[in-house]
Amino acid sequence: MNPIRIALGLEYDGRPFCGWQSQASRCGVQDALEAAIGELAGERITLNAAGRTDQGVHASMQVAHFETGAQRPLTAWVRGVNAQLPAAIAVKWALAVPPEFHARFSARRRSYHYLLLNRPERPGLLAGRVGWCHRPLDLDAMRAAARHLVGEHDFSAFRSAQCQAKSPVKKLERVVIGAENALLTFEFAASAFLHHMVRNIIGALVMVGHGAKPPGWVAEILAARARAHAAPTFMPDGLYLSGIEYDPRFGLPETSARHPWNPHP
Amino acid sequence: MNPIRIALGLEYDGRPFCGWQSQASRCGVQDALEAAIGELAGERITLNAAGRTDQGVHASMQVAHFETGAQRPLTAWVRGVNAQLPAAIAVKWALAVPPEFHARFSARRRSYHYLLLNRPERPGLLAGRVGWCHRPLDLDAMRAAARHLVGEHDFSAFRSAQCQAKSPVKKLERVVIGAENALLTFEFAASAFLHHMVRNIIGALVMVGHGAKPPGWVAEILAARARAHAAPTFMPDGLYLSGIEYDPRFGLPETSARHPWNPHP
Repeated sequence: MNPIRIALGLEYDGRPFCGWQSQASRCGVQDALEAAIGELAGERITLNAAGRTDQGVHASMQVAHFETGAQRPLTAWVRGVNAQLPAAIAVKWALAVPPEFHARFSARRRSYHYLLLNRPERPGLLAGRVGWCHRPLDLDAMRAAARHLVGEHDFSAFRSAQCQAKSPVKKLERVVIGAENALLTFEFAASAFLHHMVRNIIGALVMVGHGAKPPGWVAEILAARARAHAAPTFMPDGLYLSGIEYDPRFGLPETSARHPWNPHP
Repeated sequence: MNPIRIALGLEYDGRPFCGWQSQASRCGVQDALEAAIGELAGERITLNAAGRTDQGVHASMQVAHFETGAQRPLTAWVRGVNAQLPAAIAVKWALAVPPEFHARFSARRRSYHYLLLNRPERPGLLAGRVGWCHRPLDLDAMRAAARHLVGEHDFSAFRSAQCQAKSPVKKLERVVIGAENALLTFEFAASAFLHHMVRNIIGALVMVGHGAKPPGWVAEILAARARAHAAPTFMPDGLYLSGIEYDPRFGLPETSARHPWNPHP
């Protein structure tokens, strides 16, 4: 009998793990999930995820798929797996998908949120959940800077040295900057992102926000295409993978979280 | 020279600690703070807090005071202490207060928030930060039930066996129940609360919310004044001490957080 392909909607707190990707020491989010699913399936499982989040990065919405010969009701892949998983990871839904569905290659668009606490005192209650900037940030200046980034560009200036993407040209479709009291929210959407791209953009926007650079400087470093000219990579704490878009024909349940802390939009 | 009395505004994630109160094993939030402040003061410090939160309970706003002979600029009691504290605790502000100010006895009103994730799947991203109920909850029924609790009542039915309060009669001034998608927010305000009072009320409201009991049942257990008739104590994960009100003459900075995750209202 042919194996069945199952897609999963996931969320996790990135702090207890060493990033999404499987490691020899089994510290990856992927390792914890493969162990829990494998337990239920009674066989070794390999997961493919839409986005490989770094150490300390969270997901309010991650999509992954696996193949299995095990026949289980879909609820088993949710409740049964959740019963085996560490508390910081949860399966939100499971769906049988056709063999041509691939969590990574079928994804048409990805969204990330970055949450930034902007106050003089470091976070306590939200430690590890938000980035932090102690200097007052000018939202209008950051929005003006962000406008230079929207569209199709060579994002080499915002790419880490370890980035394995074939091309540094990506289409950044949306940057929305909001604020509720001291908590700033940055939302990014693109077909795909380079490694560290969001954290590097946040680093640049923060420099503009506290007045160290004018908004136009972001256009300059983008045009220079060299990481050396850009701002430092911002801390992972506030970064959330928050949405993956697929062709509606796959009929996936909800694949985005409007706000990382407010599940089910 | 007379010692100076300093009030502190605090926030913390309750998970790494065994509750507010100092313990022989030094696992209390109070222990971590007394050690950090004592380091800066160069002397042993004793803190008095507005509310003693239980194990696993968070604070988006806690107020405490101490006395010291050490002369330090106020910023030292904020930034200096934060540099010594574990990441899950932060001092938000410090103020010199007159000797008649007492964080606990001068408090006129306390507020708690309870955050409850209402969806079939257990929390992952928000594990330890929210309570959880997998059955759909009827907000209107819970609001009708809560109305029976507002006012001055003998809250013995919602009091833990370990409660040390002199009187079970408290005036519950406000219960506000809101929902944003799957995240329900319960806000409570009273001059003072009995031990486990909020968690016991949440337990009862959840029973009403999923239809196990009618709203009027809450009035019955309140009138019966016996814990045995009430619902089980709900999990501490979603509980936040979120505000303390003092006489304005003390001139304290902000002493409430409108939403636990949204500091500085």
